[in-house]
Amino acid sequence: MKLWDKGYALDKKIEAFTVGKDYVLDQRLVKYDCVASIAHAKMLEKSKILKKEECKKLVIALEEIIGLDSKGMFPISQEDEDCHTAIEKYLTQKLGNAGKKIHTARSRNDQVLVALRLYYKDEIDEISALIDSFMDALTAFKEKYGSTELPGYTHMRKAMPSSVGLWAGAFIESMNDNKVLLHDIEKLLDQSPLGSAAGYGVPMDIDRKLTAKLLGFSRVQENPIYVQNSRGKFESSLLHALNSMMLDLNRMASDLILFSMPEFGYFELSPEICTGSSIMPQKKNPDVLEIVRAKYHQALASEFELKSITSNLISGYNRDAQLTKEATFRGIDVAKDVLAIMVLVLGKLEVNEKKCKCAMSKELYAVKKAYELVEKGMPFRDAYKQVSKEFYVGL
Amino acid sequence: MKLWDKGYALDKKIEAFTVGKDYVLDQRLVKYDCVASIAHAKMLEKSKILKKEECKKLVIALEEIIGLDSKGMFPISQEDEDCHTAIEKYLTQKLGNAGKKIHTARSRNDQVLVALRLYYKDEIDEISALIDSFMDALTAFKEKYGSTELPGYTHMRKAMPSSVGLWAGAFIESMNDNKVLLHDIEKLLDQSPLGSAAGYGVPMDIDRKLTAKLLGFSRVQENPIYVQNSRGKFESSLLHALNSMMLDLNRMASDLILFSMPEFGYFELSPEICTGSSIMPQKKNPDVLEIVRAKYHQALASEFELKSITSNLISGYNRDAQLTKEATFRGIDVAKDVLAIMVLVLGKLEVNEKKCKCAMSKELYAVKKAYELVEKGMPFRDAYKQVSKEFYVGL
Amino acid sequence: MKLWDKGYALDKKIEAFTVGKDYVLDQRLVKYDCVASIAHAKMLEKSKILKKEECKKLVIALEEIIGLDSKGMFPISQEDEDCHTAIEKYLTQKLGNAGKKIHTARSRNDQVLVALRLYYKDEIDEISALIDSFMDALTAFKEKYGSTELPGYTHMRKAMPSSVGLWAGAFIESMNDNKVLLHDIEKLLDQSPLGSAAGYGVPMDIDRKLTAKLLGFSRVQENPIYVQNSRGKFESSLLHALNSMMLDLNRMASDLILFSMPEFGYFELSPEICTGSSIMPQKKNPDVLEIVRAKYHQALASEFELKSITSNLISGYNRDAQLTKEATFRGIDVAKDVLAIMVLVLGKLEVNEKKCKCAMSKELYAVKKAYELVEKGMPFRDAYKQVSKEFYVGL
Amino acid sequence: MKLWDKGYALDKKIEAFTVGKDYVLDQRLVKYDCVASIAHAKMLEKSKILKKEECKKLVIALEEIIGLDSKGMFPISQEDEDCHTAIEKYLTQKLGNAGKKIHTARSRNDQVLVALRLYYKDEIDEISALIDSFMDALTAFKEKYGSTELPGYTHMRKAMPSSVGLWAGAFIESMNDNKVLLHDIEKLLDQSPLGSAAGYGVPMDIDRKLTAKLLGFSRVQENPIYVQNSRGKFESSLLHALNSMMLDLNRMASDLILFSMPEFGYFELSPEICTGSSIMPQKKNPDVLEIVRAKYHQALASEFELKSITSNLISGYNRDAQLTKEATFRGIDVAKDVLAIMVLVLGKLEVNEKKCKCAMSKELYAVKKAYELVEKGMPFRDAYKQVSKEFYVGL
Repeated sequence: MKLWDKGYALDKKIEAFTVGKDYVLDQRLVKYDCVASIAHAKMLEKSKILKKEECKKLVIALEEIIGLDSKGMFPISQEDEDCHTAIEKYLTQKLGNAGKKIHTARSRNDQVLVALRLYYKDEIDEISALIDSFMDALTAFKEKYGSTELPGYTHMRKAMPSSVGLWAGAFIESMNDNKVLLHDIEKLLDQSPLGSAAGYGVPMDIDRKLTAKLLGFSRVQENPIYVQNSRGKFESSLLHALNSMMLDLNRMASDLILFSMPEFGYFELSPEICTGSSIMPQKKNPDVLEIVRAKYHQALASEFELKSITSNLISGYNRDAQLTKEATFRGIDVAKDVLAIMVLVLGKLEVNEKKCKCAMSKELYAVKKAYELVEKGMPFRDAYKQVSKEFYVGL
Repeated sequence: MKLWDKGYALDKKIEAFTVGKDYVLDQRLVKYDCVASIAHAKMLEKSKILKKEECKKLVIALEEIIGLDSKGMFPISQEDEDCHTAIEKYLTQKLGNAGKKIHTARSRNDQVLVALRLYYKDEIDEISALIDSFMDALTAFKEKYGSTELPGYTHMRKAMPSSVGLWAGAFIESMNDNKVLLHDIEKLLDQSPLGSAAGYGVPMDIDRKLTAKLLGFSRVQENPIYVQNSRGKFESSLLHALNSMMLDLNRMASDLILFSMPEFGYFELSPEICTGSSIMPQKKNPDVLEIVRAKYHQALASEFELKSITSNLISGYNRDAQLTKEATFRGIDVAKDVLAIMVLVLGKLEVNEKKCKCAMSKELYAVKKAYELVEKGMPFRDAYKQVSKEFYVGL
Repeated sequence: MKLWDKGYALDKKIEAFTVGKDYVLDQRLVKYDCVASIAHAKMLEKSKILKKEECKKLVIALEEIIGLDSKGMFPISQEDEDCHTAIEKYLTQKLGNAGKKIHTARSRNDQVLVALRLYYKDEIDEISALIDSFMDALTAFKEKYGSTELPGYTHMRKAMPSSVGLWAGAFIESMNDNKVLLHDIEKLLDQSPLGSAAGYGVPMDIDRKLTAKLLGFSRVQENPIYVQNSRGKFESSLLHALNSMMLDLNRMASDLILFSMPEFGYFELSPEICTGSSIMPQKKNPDVLEIVRAKYHQALASEFELKSITSNLISGYNRDAQLTKEATFRGIDVAKDVLAIMVLVLGKLEVNEKKCKCAMSKELYAVKKAYELVEKGMPFRDAYKQVSKEFYVGL
Repeated sequence: MKLWDKGYALDKKIEAFTVGKDYVLDQRLVKYDCVASIAHAKMLEKSKILKKEECKKLVIALEEIIGLDSKGMFPISQEDEDCHTAIEKYLTQKLGNAGKKIHTARSRNDQVLVALRLYYKDEIDEISALIDSFMDALTAFKEKYGSTELPGYTHMRKAMPSSVGLWAGAFIESMNDNKVLLHDIEKLLDQSPLGSAAGYGVPMDIDRKLTAKLLGFSRVQENPIYVQNSRGKFESSLLHALNSMMLDLNRMASDLILFSMPEFGYFELSPEICTGSSIMPQKKNPDVLEIVRAKYHQALASEFELKSITSNLISGYNRDAQLTKEATFRGIDVAKDVLAIMVLVLGKLEVNEKKCKCAMSKELYAVKKAYELVEKGMPFRDAYKQVSKEFYVGL
């Protein structure tokens, strides 16, 4: 059964192609679709579409599905197309007319959007918690090693004195800003699309504020065309926020890969997070960090995919939007995986204080020297020139 | 003269290559660099680096440069590398020691960042005003034509009744959200980098809060490594916000190009915004909208450029960051150009009410018909099936 | 067992993270890895590393694995990391010392590359055959409907007379060029990496030409560092070639979606390749074509992912390369899926000759009119102006 | 005067917006447009559209323009829109009717394409010569330093012995493949679009083979719709080929930046290609290499811009194509600049043999050790394990 079944058969290959991975991806939406359907049922009861008894039965059946799903017992088959169809089918088979009424005053277009947004909000909460863990791990690391001096680099050349504390602090301050950005983006997502139907509303009075409130949205996304036009677009904002964080982790990985090279040795990765080579017996490789570094590009590609798919299309729903699901999920998964792994890495990260100390060579203090001349009254540019002579004798 | 001149010559071709377009791009930063230098001079005076008299002279000279620049009389030559060098050179030639002191307690790395952020804040104000003009134009258009019914499309097929008002309203609501996002991003940019120097602070006490306050920043970006790591990253957030808006304009252009085709005729573009063909005498082409559509991709490429340049680099300043300037400026320019032109287009846009009316064919009301059955008590899915038979006879 | 096992345990979460999806993705490489290992074993025998008997046993066991795999009976577990480990483990368990010798004179770095290239060559053959089917279907369509006149559009406005044949012919000619490009890229891939080991060769004499020949490569990729540097890079060329084709299919889908709108009706999609709406009973949607259109962006994102992952890295193997596998496989799968589905779509595509005829309105012949004046001796630009008056009366 | 002037005025701002940077960019096409127009005139003469005398005058006038342009004396104003208009205007003003006839049997759509392709072919020749210079410089460098041993790295960890010669050789072999790819792509571009007009041919007999031959194209691009559809697409192939090369240069720059760090010191950059810091007197920075590294991302963004602009559009000319010019030119310019600068860098690059020698530490020979055991008959995997014990004592 398709929701749009009209008695003729869709070519099987075309069906498989259009369904794509939806039936797999939708597994993580089952819960959210049920939650949204419960709110929707309550609204339909208030609007006299559903009888009290029908609503009650629907709520029970939907909670049943949530329960089944939590035990991995509500699989979606390719034939079902997506979770929405599987759920409506279950309800109709179980409840008859009540099931046939649940789709009143909505379309799959707003149904999928409301499920997605509820899901995103949960993921943002989880990611937020992961960011906190990351900052905790980094703060603990900073407390342990913060006072150790390190060379500070510009242009990948020793520049001025830095410290482990300054280095860690940079990521803590940045992560704080990333978190603010993520929550700013969450505000965008925090609007209820439910009841906007296929993009042009429904020809009956419904109470969109009620469902919004029941689902914990802070407001209704009013214009139904806008609801559709925001598909993929809001997701691109979410991925942008996640990728701001991913860029920091890409940079942290780049720092750690470089400065844990034995040639520097400032940082040390404990062996249980290093991997080996199939040919070289001596190797301890920082694979985990290289993959963290590479994952940024995977995340970035997903963001770009969203921003590209949604272009050059007219307003209203276009099926192209279906593909935004996969890219968004990938972006979310990558961010969570990488954050979680970096918490672990930070717990296994050590500083080799001796190597750091050895690296604090003379040229790092050239600016300090110039400023000593400045203190004595020499204009900075003259002090700069005088000190530079020491380093450029013979050029 | 280079700020880092040490008495040996840089190969001329290497010089031209590394300077790149900076000397051209920096023209728009002259004013902001002077404004920041004035605040910096005041802080240096307070810190006893500059004498009161020196500070006064510097302020006068910097205001002089602002004045010259506003008349296009402060050109930056390729040999100067960038605006910072040109300005310090001017100050040193004019004021001697006072000029040589202005670079105390800063580096070009934070100097360019502070100028850029002041510039961005001005651009955001301008873009915000353009968004308002766009919404005003759209509101006026909506007031004039809003009640006209239009077919609403999904999958590029007639779906349900829509209206000019609903269509315009979608963009107004979306533009409001775009504006909120832009101002959220502005909060990121609204931190003062000045005094973080090359990325590792300066070996003297300075009052970063003072310069932040004098320049109107709401806070200091504390960690100097973070300051450098945010280069290009903050810019990518700015471009993300602008491109959210650009995507809406890409969609609006797509709608208008399609629905002003004579085959639809819902919208009409007045001839003075259409162009012709070199071979076909009859043509009235919507070039302006096609270019608006295409500009989204230019903007998107600029955003991606930023997000790609900044990856796989270690913390601290890397010269790669220089190239973020061009991409960011292009992104800003594109957004402003396209917004301004769309204000103009909206002023010349008409609705052909007759054509719209003709297009309101029967199938658009199929949902309504199904809902009439629902009102009579038929479950929605049954009503859907009954109505669908009318449209699929003979399949 | 890991190939690099040294007796200490890798953290389980780190292991899962670094293995990623490799153990799933590698399923499609099992066959190719065995084929390459057979050639490698023969070379090792010739080099006196393997005894004749050992080589024979290895060949038999590797063919066994190929057989098992063809029946889905050679699963790779997450613990195995990848197909190479699973295969070596199988060989060692079964054959003892012979299994322990198979990895002589190679590393996983060249082993995966040789398997990948053999796999790509097979995929290119398959894609080539799909392109032929596509061209056959298009040629059949052209033969059936080619002479029907259609309006030709520029700027999405009627321009000059075209025909179904001209339209179809454009894609045929383009597809021919795509095929040439694909085969040009195949030449790049057609070099044997086997024996380059981890990127620095092996400290013994081996016969790389022999394995290249046995595996059907047309040449050896000599420099072992280059072999590693080409990982991801060659793949990006492959995806570029596939995406050149995908762009054509994106365009064809865009044409068909537009011109099968009832407002034009030039093309008709038979109902068994159209899908419906969950809310609107009347809908016949071209979902299949919308997804074809959208898949281009998925493919493009995969290409960009490859081009981004591989940047800002030093020479030699970096683990980042592992992620190139997923992006490449996705790009290949998308191309194959879309090509296959378009063959099917073309078989169900019809031309509505009546609607086409009706659409051949007067303005399409404006150029012709101008050229009639040219034939009579009027300079083209004057003829153009004269004809344009007819169409612009009253402006 | 516009080529499509019909007596009503285009809004000035719209005009400026639609013309964009074309009038600037087209400066480099003037010569090619004239060359193509000369061939076109000869064909028109043969087709009896132009009298012998008219053709002769046109050829003389077009050669005059080429001469003026070579001295920078044929400026294109914004009002002219593009080079095609400026040239036709010049011809008409100078020659009257002959000028008004030159546009017979073509449109700007094919006119710009033929000029672009001639231009690309010239640029490919230039780039090819630059690649040769690069390979010469690298070969000279290899000859001088090739035998010096260097540590070979994998995962940014010392792996096995390498050498300067092996390193340089990797880039030479790769550059050879890049050149082959570039010439493969050139074959795509080497088809004449002239005479395909606006995308639907012209209603008269013309000899497209003649113009193709006169212009040195190896074949005619037959289908006129395909000609239009290939706009931007062929350019993306060109940029792909250039960016394959750019990726190598990105990698070479990454190698040189890292291994010229004093902490390694394998490579040394002479001071005249290094730049300094505005604050740190001691710095010698490898800016040139950092910018080479970053330019890859600029080039990649340009390629992606082309691949994105051309998507989701219907067949035939769309004005969006205009923006492909800027992205393509940027991609070409970047490639040329970077290649030329790297030739220079290689000329100033030195190897510090002492530092290289010092870096050849024991672990680099672990594989060798294992292979010595293999020579004695120990299976590789056992040898691997035995040698690994030496390096992992105490883990």
